[in-house]
Amino acid sequence: MALSYDFELDFKVRDYECDLQGVVNNSVYQNYLEHTRHEFMLSIGLDFADLFKKGIVAVVARIDLAYKTPLVSGDEFTSKLRVEHQGIRYMFYQDIYRKADDKLCLKGVVTTTTVISGRLAVSEEIKEALERVNAKRK
Amino acid sequence: MALSYDFELDFKVRDYECDLQGVVNNSVYQNYLEHTRHEFMLSIGLDFADLFKKGIVAVVARIDLAYKTPLVSGDEFTSKLRVEHQGIRYMFYQDIYRKADDKLCLKGVVTTTTVISGRLAVSEEIKEALERVNAKRK
Amino acid sequence: MALSYDFELDFKVRDYECDLQGVVNNSVYQNYLEHTRHEFMLSIGLDFADLFKKGIVAVVARIDLAYKTPLVSGDEFTSKLRVEHQGIRYMFYQDIYRKADDKLCLKGVVTTTTVISGRLAVSEEIKEALERVNAKRK
Amino acid sequence: MALSYDFELDFKVRDYECDLQGVVNNSVYQNYLEHTRHEFMLSIGLDFADLFKKGIVAVVARIDLAYKTPLVSGDEFTSKLRVEHQGIRYMFYQDIYRKADDKLCLKGVVTTTTVISGRLAVSEEIKEALERVNAKRK
Repeated sequence: MALSYDFELDFKVRDYECDLQGVVNNSVYQNYLEHTRHEFMLSIGLDFADLFKKGIVAVVARIDLAYKTPLVSGDEFTSKLRVEHQGIRYMFYQDIYRKADDKLCLKGVVTTTTVISGRLAVSEEIKEALERVNAKRK
Repeated sequence: MALSYDFELDFKVRDYECDLQGVVNNSVYQNYLEHTRHEFMLSIGLDFADLFKKGIVAVVARIDLAYKTPLVSGDEFTSKLRVEHQGIRYMFYQDIYRKADDKLCLKGVVTTTTVISGRLAVSEEIKEALERVNAKRK
Repeated sequence: MALSYDFELDFKVRDYECDLQGVVNNSVYQNYLEHTRHEFMLSIGLDFADLFKKGIVAVVARIDLAYKTPLVSGDEFTSKLRVEHQGIRYMFYQDIYRKADDKLCLKGVVTTTTVISGRLAVSEEIKEALERVNAKRK
Repeated sequence: MALSYDFELDFKVRDYECDLQGVVNNSVYQNYLEHTRHEFMLSIGLDFADLFKKGIVAVVARIDLAYKTPLVSGDEFTSKLRVEHQGIRYMFYQDIYRKADDKLCLKGVVTTTTVISGRLAVSEEIKEALERVNAKRK
């Protein structure tokens, strides 16, 4: 059974993201994943920078990444995301596929939460936006 | 029982590493961990860039990070590492502690392997260097 | 008289590119400029990574940047480029405009050259490709 | 006559800073220069992040860099800085030397200024700290 995603974003490797091995440096995939999450949030009406200004600090608690196939200079790829709300946590299942052959390059699980007024707390604004995503999915 | 480490490296946060939330961006910790591994390798006679030139490509297969306490501008910290050799894999247990209060900031497990002539293979050079580390530990 | 450009590329600020002041970090503009140059090169049949593999090393000799208006989270912008061939040098005039109001954000001059077999030399491949750009411009 | 510097900071190239040409990427030198300026500021009692929180926004207006010799994996280098106060501007003359042979790698001039309450203005706090530097120099 194919996993369904809530959001997809296209990218192209930029040469400065490659390291001396000639492949995208491992840390850069986190940049791709973060940008994908933030663009997804925007697509459902949530602005990461605005949330921060309002005191709702979205933070990453865990990140678990399996590197499958390295991206290289010139590669185009699609970053796909599925989100699950679990209590105080928002789990993002994020996979990266190379466009040329749809090959899986990275498989990631990013566990995020929100800190409000210095403590872990559910943001009603985020919760409601994600419930709309879930409703749309069914 | 306290975990023993094989290598430690001191760092100081650089302001360009902080993002709009005023904390070190999540991806930057991977830079810290990579630099720590490469300096550890140098300390046991292995040069990451030289290995690559010789066709021994050290790669990260998995990375699992738990973010505990965010580092901010001005923070000094120590990046600690313990390595375990498991068949074709080199497991790096890498933790980051803030110097001011020895608080755990990041707990990571980085699974690496080596690709030689395009296929997963044990590098004798790396294996022997790591065996010397293990021998010294006991 | 308006300056004419040879190439344009659209970008959107990614949040990880912003620093603790909440604006795109100064160094990141060099990433934008480099990616623009490499995409321009591709558009005229030159591949930066391939040139390197063939021993033609394109290098930056000088970079002169005037920061006019800071880009912030969410900004979309266009990176524009004009190239002039001057002997051993390729001068890139590179400007960045914010899309919302066409405001000039960055004005740059990037002086590049090529190193072939360890010494400064004109690459016939690059020279001919740029001559085609000049011919098209008139 | 040798130029005298007000501040020096030692660095070592980190492998993730190198790009597919196997040298430190051009943009990374700006990171080195920024970190040097901020550490210099700290050494004279000025904290970049604190100034920002107090509404004193130190900004780069221009950056002019001449790339002389590329740094590579493993290189240690010293980043040296001299500051001149010119009205609303603080000029930083910043040079990078490779430690192994004292070879000049980068020659830079960074023109900075301060924005207070949304407009260019002299910060008395910065001005006085820099005057102490000048006094010490003579």
